[in-house]
Amino acid sequence: MLPELDGIEQSTDPALLRQKSRDFYWYSPILKARLDGLAAECWVRPRDEAEVLRVLTACRARRIPVTVRGGGTGNYGQCVPLQGGVLRDTTAMHRPLALEDGVLTAEPGARLIDLDLWARERGWELRLWPSTKRSATLGGFVAGGGAGVGGLAHGTMRERGNLLGARVATMEDPPRIIEVEGIAANPVNRTHGTTGVLTRLRIPLAPARSWRDVAVAFPAYGQALRFAHALSFADGIAKKMCATFDPRLPPCFRGLSVPEGQSLALLMVTRAGLLATEELAREHGGAIVAEQDAVAAERDPDATPFYEYCWNHTTLHVLKRDRGVTYLQCRFLFEGTVEAVEQSAALFPDEVWMHTECVRFGGRATMTALPVLRWHGVARLREIMAGFEAIGVGIANPHVLTIEEGSGYRRVPGDQLGFKRRVDPLGLFNPGKMRDFSPVEEHA
Amino acid sequence: MLPELDGIEQSTDPALLRQKSRDFYWYSPILKARLDGLAAECWVRPRDEAEVLRVLTACRARRIPVTVRGGGTGNYGQCVPLQGGVLRDTTAMHRPLALEDGVLTAEPGARLIDLDLWARERGWELRLWPSTKRSATLGGFVAGGGAGVGGLAHGTMRERGNLLGARVATMEDPPRIIEVEGIAANPVNRTHGTTGVLTRLRIPLAPARSWRDVAVAFPAYGQALRFAHALSFADGIAKKMCATFDPRLPPCFRGLSVPEGQSLALLMVTRAGLLATEELAREHGGAIVAEQDAVAAERDPDATPFYEYCWNHTTLHVLKRDRGVTYLQCRFLFEGTVEAVEQSAALFPDEVWMHTECVRFGGRATMTALPVLRWHGVARLREIMAGFEAIGVGIANPHVLTIEEGSGYRRVPGDQLGFKRRVDPLGLFNPGKMRDFSPVEEHA
Repeated sequence: MLPELDGIEQSTDPALLRQKSRDFYWYSPILKARLDGLAAECWVRPRDEAEVLRVLTACRARRIPVTVRGGGTGNYGQCVPLQGGVLRDTTAMHRPLALEDGVLTAEPGARLIDLDLWARERGWELRLWPSTKRSATLGGFVAGGGAGVGGLAHGTMRERGNLLGARVATMEDPPRIIEVEGIAANPVNRTHGTTGVLTRLRIPLAPARSWRDVAVAFPAYGQALRFAHALSFADGIAKKMCATFDPRLPPCFRGLSVPEGQSLALLMVTRAGLLATEELAREHGGAIVAEQDAVAAERDPDATPFYEYCWNHTTLHVLKRDRGVTYLQCRFLFEGTVEAVEQSAALFPDEVWMHTECVRFGGRATMTALPVLRWHGVARLREIMAGFEAIGVGIANPHVLTIEEGSGYRRVPGDQLGFKRRVDPLGLFNPGKMRDFSPVEEHA
Repeated sequence: MLPELDGIEQSTDPALLRQKSRDFYWYSPILKARLDGLAAECWVRPRDEAEVLRVLTACRARRIPVTVRGGGTGNYGQCVPLQGGVLRDTTAMHRPLALEDGVLTAEPGARLIDLDLWARERGWELRLWPSTKRSATLGGFVAGGGAGVGGLAHGTMRERGNLLGARVATMEDPPRIIEVEGIAANPVNRTHGTTGVLTRLRIPLAPARSWRDVAVAFPAYGQALRFAHALSFADGIAKKMCATFDPRLPPCFRGLSVPEGQSLALLMVTRAGLLATEELAREHGGAIVAEQDAVAAERDPDATPFYEYCWNHTTLHVLKRDRGVTYLQCRFLFEGTVEAVEQSAALFPDEVWMHTECVRFGGRATMTALPVLRWHGVARLREIMAGFEAIGVGIANPHVLTIEEGSGYRRVPGDQLGFKRRVDPLGLFNPGKMRDFSPVEEHA
């Protein structure tokens, strides 16, 4: 306990510290071995910017590292403190603050589902959310996520215009709050809390739609892929999500009944797009096997919105039945996308269960994949990644800790390193996560 | 006058017939020479489907051609009767009928601006509209247009899902109303009234947005082009329109002040997208020179929404000052788009004033061009078109009368010809406009 932080919610309870220092890094056996047992020494939950600044001032004076945690839904140990120190929990700063002209201003600890429902009551919805929407926070999504549902309409959080601005607490001398907006906000976008402590975010929303969850089954996986790809390019059909699954995956999806051996596509489309979607599915040999109101399913604790089978929830559903798997993250080129997915799925047919998500990068539709794969050790994982890369598939390795080694194609343009040197000269924000950084000032 | 049509609004007044038998084909000196003086022999304005069927029954019995006219805003003589006969005016059937789940059902004679304002009061807006939105009708846009504002978000009317269904009066024996939906509606999509008389249409809408008209000026046309292309691919910026103009064009735009010699881009973006748009413009050397509320401008009879400088309004603004010009319609490939526009603009620098519109085809962003060109006769026009085609630019020749010779890339997939044989065996619907059709039944 730091006496300077009197009055700020805090704890040094070891069980709480263990719990709050973890995320879902354990999908990766490599990260599990590396991160298990790491924990902060003190958990603090400031309620406002003034309390945040008090925390940072105390930590700066004592050269204590500060790691930020939202919902703890990351998969790369984004919120796991590598060097102990203080864990700043954002969840007491969870208020939506304003919604004007389709722009939401909110505190970083707001859960995405709460923000979405709040916005929805006002005619708007989030452009993007992760499959962990029910527990993830806005700040965590901006700082450590940024891709997910909505990606085939709006791209990822790195696309120009998807993050409008932020207020950020720095570790300067003394710590202070700065405002960044437009491209000047890029250095705090997806940097795992290494470039400042977010205290407020401004993001544009989309008009609220009545999304339908749709499940389409296909006799062959290639049909599902071709359907999904065609749907991505069908500008007349408003859509929020489209994922494809190897036939070995749907049996792991509790609550969703897909005919044995069939491949699956899961979509979110508007009701107005249902007829065209059904026609497109039929042309590709598919049939709709389930359909539901996506928003109602999300609000019903007993229901599963289909996005909770997608993105990295897919891996989770398999892990619930079989702890012997992990996953990869791949990106395919804009041309020959479907063929490249098929080719990579055929490389390691028994070990890799293909799962793709339709997304847009830089305004162009393609697919990413989060295939589930059988874990046979680090050497085999390297072989599989090398096999994929050898046929031109990009790998965003989810088994690494630093921003630089991670999801290269999600990295945001901008001078993150220069920004960090300025706002965190001592290197106290989430140390170890930005590989290329070394402290500007000597620690005392 | 046909006695069978007693009680249906009609006229054989020569002045009215001349007026109602025309559209804006006169932008083309070729079409002007071909169509001037052509007129229907009788104008009828049925109020409902029963009256439409009475008209068709009478015309079928007497083998009288039937040509349909909405707002008369076409540029290819779509509503000009080549063989006289009856002109069916749609404008008495102008009601919006339903709006449910974002799907609008309306009569074909409804003006697009009226439908858009009606929908907007209910939280929705048209996905697509032509620059002639203030006078064009829904039926005319579906039957003879289909491209325009919104095209860089939703593609053209030919994209799957942009036309959901229609009710169509046929010239079978006896004439009847049929319903078509989904891809089965393709044969009445953009066929200039040759495949039936639309009596009702069903289209999906987009959630209403508060669009901002933005004018950005650039020192060089290449900068405007590159900015527009980048904006097309900026998925984080919600947008409805983006056009670029050679510096010789803006001086023709009354009400819009652009610095002398500067090239222009006109956009519709949301207020939430303004900051990112401005940053992108600045990176391309541009500066915002005008901005207004697009919807307010549309409602104000003294104001000009910026879309009324775009699409084929551009040509009109030049024609108002200089009757010695006409225009072309070009389409550029998905790769090397900007370079192809520059290359084609450089081919005939004095005669061709480039004007492009950002659009999407089949889910991919590109540009079309409607360059204004100095008229030096048919032979020179052919040379210019051949010059463009020689460098790989597609030409949608706007100086022809038939669907087949016209805008090939806007043609809708489907068996239009087979459909026409079934619903119009005598070939009485707008005869001469579907080149490949010959009557199935002999005329009596």
